[in-house]
Amino acid sequence: MQQFFKARSIAVIGASRNPNKIGHVIVKNLLESGYKGKVYPVNPKVNVLLNQKCYPSVSALPARPDLAVIAVPAEQSLHVIEECGRHGIRHIIMITAGFAEVGNHELDQKLLGIIRKYRLQLIGPNVLGVYDAHSSLDTLFLPRLRLNRPKPGGISFVCQSGAVGSATLDMIAKQGYGCAKFISYGNALSIDETDLIEYLGNDPETDVICLYIEGLKNGRRFMDVCKKVSRKKPIIAVKGGTTLAGTQAALSHTAALAGSADIYKAAFQQSGIMWADSLEDWFDYARILEKSIKPKGKKVMVITNGGGYGILAADAVEKSNLEMASFSPRTKELLRKKFPPLVNIHNPLDLVGDATTQRYADAIEACLQEKNIDMILLIVLYQTPLITSDIVDVIKEACSQRKKPIIVVSTGGDFTDIHKRSLEESGIPCFTFPERAVQAMRILWDFYQKKK
Amino acid sequence: MQQFFKARSIAVIGASRNPNKIGHVIVKNLLESGYKGKVYPVNPKVNVLLNQKCYPSVSALPARPDLAVIAVPAEQSLHVIEECGRHGIRHIIMITAGFAEVGNHELDQKLLGIIRKYRLQLIGPNVLGVYDAHSSLDTLFLPRLRLNRPKPGGISFVCQSGAVGSATLDMIAKQGYGCAKFISYGNALSIDETDLIEYLGNDPETDVICLYIEGLKNGRRFMDVCKKVSRKKPIIAVKGGTTLAGTQAALSHTAALAGSADIYKAAFQQSGIMWADSLEDWFDYARILEKSIKPKGKKVMVITNGGGYGILAADAVEKSNLEMASFSPRTKELLRKKFPPLVNIHNPLDLVGDATTQRYADAIEACLQEKNIDMILLIVLYQTPLITSDIVDVIKEACSQRKKPIIVVSTGGDFTDIHKRSLEESGIPCFTFPERAVQAMRILWDFYQKKK
Repeated sequence: MQQFFKARSIAVIGASRNPNKIGHVIVKNLLESGYKGKVYPVNPKVNVLLNQKCYPSVSALPARPDLAVIAVPAEQSLHVIEECGRHGIRHIIMITAGFAEVGNHELDQKLLGIIRKYRLQLIGPNVLGVYDAHSSLDTLFLPRLRLNRPKPGGISFVCQSGAVGSATLDMIAKQGYGCAKFISYGNALSIDETDLIEYLGNDPETDVICLYIEGLKNGRRFMDVCKKVSRKKPIIAVKGGTTLAGTQAALSHTAALAGSADIYKAAFQQSGIMWADSLEDWFDYARILEKSIKPKGKKVMVITNGGGYGILAADAVEKSNLEMASFSPRTKELLRKKFPPLVNIHNPLDLVGDATTQRYADAIEACLQEKNIDMILLIVLYQTPLITSDIVDVIKEACSQRKKPIIVVSTGGDFTDIHKRSLEESGIPCFTFPERAVQAMRILWDFYQKKK
Repeated sequence: MQQFFKARSIAVIGASRNPNKIGHVIVKNLLESGYKGKVYPVNPKVNVLLNQKCYPSVSALPARPDLAVIAVPAEQSLHVIEECGRHGIRHIIMITAGFAEVGNHELDQKLLGIIRKYRLQLIGPNVLGVYDAHSSLDTLFLPRLRLNRPKPGGISFVCQSGAVGSATLDMIAKQGYGCAKFISYGNALSIDETDLIEYLGNDPETDVICLYIEGLKNGRRFMDVCKKVSRKKPIIAVKGGTTLAGTQAALSHTAALAGSADIYKAAFQQSGIMWADSLEDWFDYARILEKSIKPKGKKVMVITNGGGYGILAADAVEKSNLEMASFSPRTKELLRKKFPPLVNIHNPLDLVGDATTQRYADAIEACLQEKNIDMILLIVLYQTPLITSDIVDVIKEACSQRKKPIIVVSTGGDFTDIHKRSLEESGIPCFTFPERAVQAMRILWDFYQKKK
């Protein structure tokens, strides 16, 4: 399986001179991504492509590539794959669509025959491909100008829908989060979600597995593998097709039999998979689980400079499975002495509108020391005049102590975004809304509870 | 009430030379905001402030201002307000904090006495002030560099917490949404939420009222007024303090008796107020209700170029109170002829990964003509190579026909944001996640149903 992510040479079959064609974009991306391996464009009608020699066929290549990417139309694809098999290429990413998802089951059967004959490892057909942020191996056919690639990190994606995964990749890249591996696995004729989850479970680069799934073919094996993997790493799943309308749509998308939502939900729960109700939840859970350290308990202290935000956060904590922490008399006294009388030493700890960076530093330090506090929800509204930009350094320093999870909430515009971006690039999870931050913190707590 | 938003002259009492002081920021903002009226800084210790003559007291002003903003400490504030009253200034915004919210009820009573004596109209104490995007009257003490001010538009905010409102202002400004009026009303000693809602109900600049509320003093009157206003304009409310922890926090924030969440929820519902469960919902509902035209029915067509997105949107529609629309045989045939065989003429209408801008244009046009469709959920992933940037013009043109609500969903990074921003600036509501878009569409439908 490693070959799909760390291949030292790749043939792109169906390489094209037309910049709008998939076979062009893939070659271009591989050349521009920083990928260190060899790229062999293959197309009998082209001699040179993007300053690279282009080969008429797989048999004409100077060496056997570790991996072949197939971007030819469905009707030519079987012939090409047969050729790959004959020349000893065993790893194939098959972008080509037009199989079971459009009702062409006959073509499926033929392809399956070739896969078995040559014992191929094939991802696809009908996929977007693979992206490995660590090796820069990039077969996504989406131009890098249009889709930001995330930096190396710990989140891996296993997506039956390429679009769901790639749009999320683009978003996490913009927000400064990192990715390990991304796989769009489409019709899963050979390699399926279970194979990929099993592999990522043992992959040292992967900390969190995000799964978008429409239908399962072998539920029992899937559950067995996920049970094992989820003991080590969180698996967060979004299920496409949880209603009649969605299920029908899934059938014509990846030929998946989506099945009942309740059955999937129960099966996921039994397998230790965390269920995300929406793409937004999926993204929120992934980033907190990748970035945050383990909480020792579920007692949350809310620090804020906006009273209403503190109240809404307190409401959210109380509605969730978490608890509002209390200060010990000792900490109360300590803060009472440091803060002006307008500051109530309470949870939420409202540092009020004239809060300075120093007031935040004192509050955070006291919370890190306080035994009755397990997690800190840090609400910072950068709009007030006395918050200086070094608040970012104060937060980074506190997080670097790795004593307690610190989750930041900030709502705003351009000025706020500068600060958020800086925190997120240092690996501190930031949220726009207090309610979402609390929900993510609950998921964090749930994961470590379950693990225990 | 008009004076608070359209005053032709404003005295800022407690104007300061220290750029970190509230009394400095307010004068600076008024001078820089584009406000056309006269600004009188008042401070006995200062002669000139930001190139403006500074007056020692209200009695020394050359003319009686329409409005006074009070930014002096609590202990001096009563004296200053008494002076305003004596000099016939009847409209006062009282930024000063340190009243009932810190348990100083005696000061409250004294202030109330002065308000009655001079029959003052007073917003506050303990507020952020007022912002009117149409007149550029801006008394928010948050620097414009730190908090973007939104352009003129139809959303008005009535916020017991200044921070909740202002951070949201900042966010909507960044995203290109417009605002009519923003009022942080704090302790509501004189003018309260009901007065403000009544006023905004008749305000031609206000289309949607966003309310953040911690506690009500006169529930009966509030309900009567909201019942009337909500027949004309949507009122969307977030309630701070719906749990024990939140209620306690509200008491020390604005001295509000937050009361039971269930009672508030029931009262809001009876008054035609839309309940938002979170700040994120609040924002989403406001923008769709301000921007979107009225739907004729609840049948939604989903158009997409990402299969998974279509499935998730279909799931969300079916789970909501909305319906998935169907194409008539005539439209089906029309599209069948225009589109390649890989495109299933179905709902969701998946234009697939090689969708062109023209394919979108054809799909949208067919949906606008089709009688069985009431609303269009348009998912566009700009990452695919064949979507050209004029897709934005296609969408704008379709929306400008004002035939059916068109709601756009796009997830991504920088490239996507360019397109989204352009759409949002043209008044087209865009969402990052399909589930949130569908939830907002349901609120849109609910509002017009209730109105009927």
